[in-house]
Amino acid sequence: MNAEIIAVGSELLLGQITNTNARYISSQLAELGINVYYHTVVGDNADRLKDAIQLAESRADLIIFSGGLGPTKDDLTKETIAHHLQTQLVMDDEAMISIEAFFKRINRPMTENNKKQALVLENCQVLANHNGMAPGMFYSNLDKIYILLPGPPKEMEPMFQLEAKPLLAKWLNQGEVIVSHVLRFYGIGEAELETKIHDLLDVQSNPTIAPLASDGEVMLRITAKASTDQEAKGLISQTEQLLMDRVGTYLYGYNDDSLASRTVEVLQEKNWTISAAESLTAGLFQSELAAIPGASAILIGGMVTYSIDSKITQLGVPQEIIEEHGVVSGECAVAMAMRIKQAFNTDIGVGLTGAAGPSSLEGKPAGTVWIAIAFPNGIVKSHELHLSDMRNTNRLRVVKRTCYEIIRHLTNGNDS
Amino acid sequence: MNAEIIAVGSELLLGQITNTNARYISSQLAELGINVYYHTVVGDNADRLKDAIQLAESRADLIIFSGGLGPTKDDLTKETIAHHLQTQLVMDDEAMISIEAFFKRINRPMTENNKKQALVLENCQVLANHNGMAPGMFYSNLDKIYILLPGPPKEMEPMFQLEAKPLLAKWLNQGEVIVSHVLRFYGIGEAELETKIHDLLDVQSNPTIAPLASDGEVMLRITAKASTDQEAKGLISQTEQLLMDRVGTYLYGYNDDSLASRTVEVLQEKNWTISAAESLTAGLFQSELAAIPGASAILIGGMVTYSIDSKITQLGVPQEIIEEHGVVSGECAVAMAMRIKQAFNTDIGVGLTGAAGPSSLEGKPAGTVWIAIAFPNGIVKSHELHLSDMRNTNRLRVVKRTCYEIIRHLTNGNDS
Repeated sequence: MNAEIIAVGSELLLGQITNTNARYISSQLAELGINVYYHTVVGDNADRLKDAIQLAESRADLIIFSGGLGPTKDDLTKETIAHHLQTQLVMDDEAMISIEAFFKRINRPMTENNKKQALVLENCQVLANHNGMAPGMFYSNLDKIYILLPGPPKEMEPMFQLEAKPLLAKWLNQGEVIVSHVLRFYGIGEAELETKIHDLLDVQSNPTIAPLASDGEVMLRITAKASTDQEAKGLISQTEQLLMDRVGTYLYGYNDDSLASRTVEVLQEKNWTISAAESLTAGLFQSELAAIPGASAILIGGMVTYSIDSKITQLGVPQEIIEEHGVVSGECAVAMAMRIKQAFNTDIGVGLTGAAGPSSLEGKPAGTVWIAIAFPNGIVKSHELHLSDMRNTNRLRVVKRTCYEIIRHLTNGNDS
Repeated sequence: MNAEIIAVGSELLLGQITNTNARYISSQLAELGINVYYHTVVGDNADRLKDAIQLAESRADLIIFSGGLGPTKDDLTKETIAHHLQTQLVMDDEAMISIEAFFKRINRPMTENNKKQALVLENCQVLANHNGMAPGMFYSNLDKIYILLPGPPKEMEPMFQLEAKPLLAKWLNQGEVIVSHVLRFYGIGEAELETKIHDLLDVQSNPTIAPLASDGEVMLRITAKASTDQEAKGLISQTEQLLMDRVGTYLYGYNDDSLASRTVEVLQEKNWTISAAESLTAGLFQSELAAIPGASAILIGGMVTYSIDSKITQLGVPQEIIEEHGVVSGECAVAMAMRIKQAFNTDIGVGLTGAAGPSSLEGKPAGTVWIAIAFPNGIVKSHELHLSDMRNTNRLRVVKRTCYEIIRHLTNGNDS
């Protein structure tokens, strides 16, 4: 089976947004063993969309559309497909109920054009939208499959994962199963990691090993094909062991884990609470933890001490420390961590301070950052970082590194 | 003139990387007034690439390729184009010198396959690569223009900007300029906004009005063509006035503004400081302000009071308020805002509390949120929100709404 992905939207052709959907869908299809030969982007224009559909039908068995399912006149994907396939659109009651409920919940009037979103291709399988209004569709006609997905990634991705992918897997009805497993690493660059596993990457066929890097993290996706789930998992397990022998020291999690979710988990496992005093990150560390459901079991709270004065008067960092060492110092970070731990009465206290950038601070170059973590029993660890001059990349890196150090400390048998 | 962008590379079809080049090139072409009707992605396969070229020639005057100019056997863009156009590749001396110099600089031996990178289409205009080895090409044949660019964005973008764009502008030799202007709105849905300006959207031709929605915000891009910059700006100004009469009350900014950047700006203009006490957002509001360079002039700091106890013991919210009204209440939000304003001695204090989701809290459904903002002179405003059960969408919406209310208060002549 081979596939073509058609993204519909003039905003893509105007360069206002990037077609991240094609990448997401492609990576998902790769897991299912479906080849993708073309991506196409076409604007909100019925004639050109129809041409794109006809072309895709001439060269693919599976055509996946994203975008153009919304309420406005510009949204014409399902209308064009219905016309092209000589079928009609019918009202889907469940989708209509869900749209009405949405407007009730946000307490805004539902305009007439929103009803259009509940129309679906007759005889399609409706794909529920858990994060928005427009439902998706799975439609087969002659020997082709058409999948229609909404444009916004936060609606499209879960819909593909939860609704479309299982239907596709069933349709493929292959005698073999494909299982994937992702290993997540931090504290090592992509090039360095690849160098360490170079020979394993060269000889791979089943399982395959696919490296992927983003935002300072590196992932390895192991994908195995076999006749049973158990057999595939066995193959993955062998490859995982080979990889762990080489780069296991940098592993922090698996699959959908994030550094923040693992931090919440390891703290929950120990039943430890945490607080933070943040300067350059200004709440980002605590916010990232709070993004994980269940964070309230471990996150008590903390302070944002952005001004020098607030570090002294609100948090209680001794003025002498700041006068002697400045705020971009290990001493200041340690004092912040210890003070917040004490004030909020938590097991762990975190202190984050430094020059976020783009400017230098106290003569220290942009990207000079101190992380201090106060653990129980008086153990305090501090780390000096030298990052770039990119303010927001730096702030995120500091949060990730803090999570990584907490995970490492708590999973290395440092119980006290 | 209309264009098609063809990105070449199997890694795109496998979902390993995102096609950011198409977006960049599209936005650049939009500035030149060149319409883009299609983006295509094709793998490292000569037959399928040839098909894509023929198809593009049938529907575009300008075809821009990115990728496939490198040294390996997989790189076959220029070879395929040369074969298709029945021309040949010739060695470009300048490119060869530059490649040799590169290897000398990094002190590595130049392998034979690197010479392939200096081959260019005969009679093309060579586009210098300031950040890599493979040169680009600008080639005209019959009534078509072919532009070949390298794949890595850090090589492609400066090459397009510095080398290809001036050649294109010259080729167009247009007597007209194109100017765009973006209006940014908050507090109104895309469908509702379009309903209000429906008749203006229907009759548009010059300027055009393009609506775009993302993350709870709606944008309108006004684009005018005229013979002078001034004339184009005049046309935009007329259309802007018509739009402002209908939906001006929701406008918060222009072009690259964000709600956070506008908040920092309006506070800087008034020379007012701000602090925040955050529960469900857990630092996200302060972090978003701190993401804007220059935030330290207005952001003093604040607290994350995630646990109930920290609201009472650390922030000083009266226990009776929480016992009587709960933490998901206007009373609690107001007390948080007033207490943090007082403690951090700022002009504005913000209190954010509610049920982030996915679970309900104190019997209030997920998405029930209270925002309180304490302004100078004892003015305190509070807002009750009913959002979805999506934790992180909610948290971001709360931050955006808080920014919006601050901007609205400070720009509506509420000076006190």
